[in-house]
Amino acid sequence: MIDAYSWATPNGHKVHIMLEECGLPYRVHAVNIGAGDQFKPEFLRISPNNKIPAIVDSEGPDGKPISLFESGAILLYLASKTGRFLPEDVRGKYEALQWLMFQMGGVGPMLGQAHHFRIYAPEKVEYAINRYTNEAKRLYGVLDKRLAEHAYLAGDAYSIADIATFPWLRSWENQGVELSDYTHVKRWFDEIAARPAVQRGVEVLAKHRKPVDDKERDILFGATQYQRR
Amino acid sequence: MIDAYSWATPNGHKVHIMLEECGLPYRVHAVNIGAGDQFKPEFLRISPNNKIPAIVDSEGPDGKPISLFESGAILLYLASKTGRFLPEDVRGKYEALQWLMFQMGGVGPMLGQAHHFRIYAPEKVEYAINRYTNEAKRLYGVLDKRLAEHAYLAGDAYSIADIATFPWLRSWENQGVELSDYTHVKRWFDEIAARPAVQRGVEVLAKHRKPVDDKERDILFGATQYQRR
Repeated sequence: MIDAYSWATPNGHKVHIMLEECGLPYRVHAVNIGAGDQFKPEFLRISPNNKIPAIVDSEGPDGKPISLFESGAILLYLASKTGRFLPEDVRGKYEALQWLMFQMGGVGPMLGQAHHFRIYAPEKVEYAINRYTNEAKRLYGVLDKRLAEHAYLAGDAYSIADIATFPWLRSWENQGVELSDYTHVKRWFDEIAARPAVQRGVEVLAKHRKPVDDKERDILFGATQYQRR
Repeated sequence: MIDAYSWATPNGHKVHIMLEECGLPYRVHAVNIGAGDQFKPEFLRISPNNKIPAIVDSEGPDGKPISLFESGAILLYLASKTGRFLPEDVRGKYEALQWLMFQMGGVGPMLGQAHHFRIYAPEKVEYAINRYTNEAKRLYGVLDKRLAEHAYLAGDAYSIADIATFPWLRSWENQGVELSDYTHVKRWFDEIAARPAVQRGVEVLAKHRKPVDDKERDILFGATQYQRR
């Protein structure tokens, strides 16, 4: 049994979708990051960076429980556990790893900054809004070129690179992007959005999430006080 | 033979250090990102996200040439090629993968934003400077806790997680951080900095890099114009 400690955010949805796609039995535990659950000692023990998602698999590769944090590592772990969504041929595998890393290092962090400055920041900082909106458009452009030539990010087959990227692109409106401007991304997006496992995955914990209020904003973005020296 | 397309930045140094640590024969090709080399078609063919580093290995796993972009994927590839710096036991491997992903998704992008707003941005945006300086301190705190309990990020052995993280921490002054405040990070940092392969790696292309002038700033940070639709 896999216990997922998560919340209805793009990084959380990566894991919810992967679990649904793999048909693995799992229990989900809400970590309300607007209420500060991510700073509780019991969560920090499995996720020392105070971020969701994290998982505990009661049957690790050696038969003993194993815990993991960082969505990219969790996707690789679940792909290895099930033999699914990561190509077995070595070229396909590295194609998927490159685009997974592109999501982890670019799509996620930079679209996250776009969300912050466009939606959540208490002041409107024009320089930062422009910086991250431009970067969002650049990233969608990179994806569009790739998806003009390949059905999926890693090539012919749906993989963890797609599962990692899709949840971030659901919020294109918050990134200052018009999804339909990117024809190939939109084709890919609509196809993935129609997958039953994806439709189940994005509903996980969704009803728990509400608009961010001022107190939550302080916890989310003033949150460094919790760990600052 | 490995051809590395790179520049003397933290992400470039990850690959230079790994190649030196593994003793692999390589040639380095300067991609001057201040002069816009990253937007040339021949570079985009191997690095569609217009970022350094990228590599071409003339002898891929199937004997044919293979190209890779994204520093995290390149480190995993070189670890697999040489059998070095990624633990073989499955628990050790996932420890390393988690901390590698933590570097890719957190340390790199967020310290990069700290550099941008503290050093390179043409205007001083106080909100953003505070946001990313606070995040830098939080990240150093997470690393310090980990390194209080383990010699290296993945546990007992030096791994690609350390190789990925170290180059970003060389610029602690530019991140508003006092390295000596983080006792365990400093112990780890000094030990890694003393490794001969690391000392060779950080010198690669270093003499090519000069302070950023206004024209370069425009190419680096107005660079979205090159790919914007």
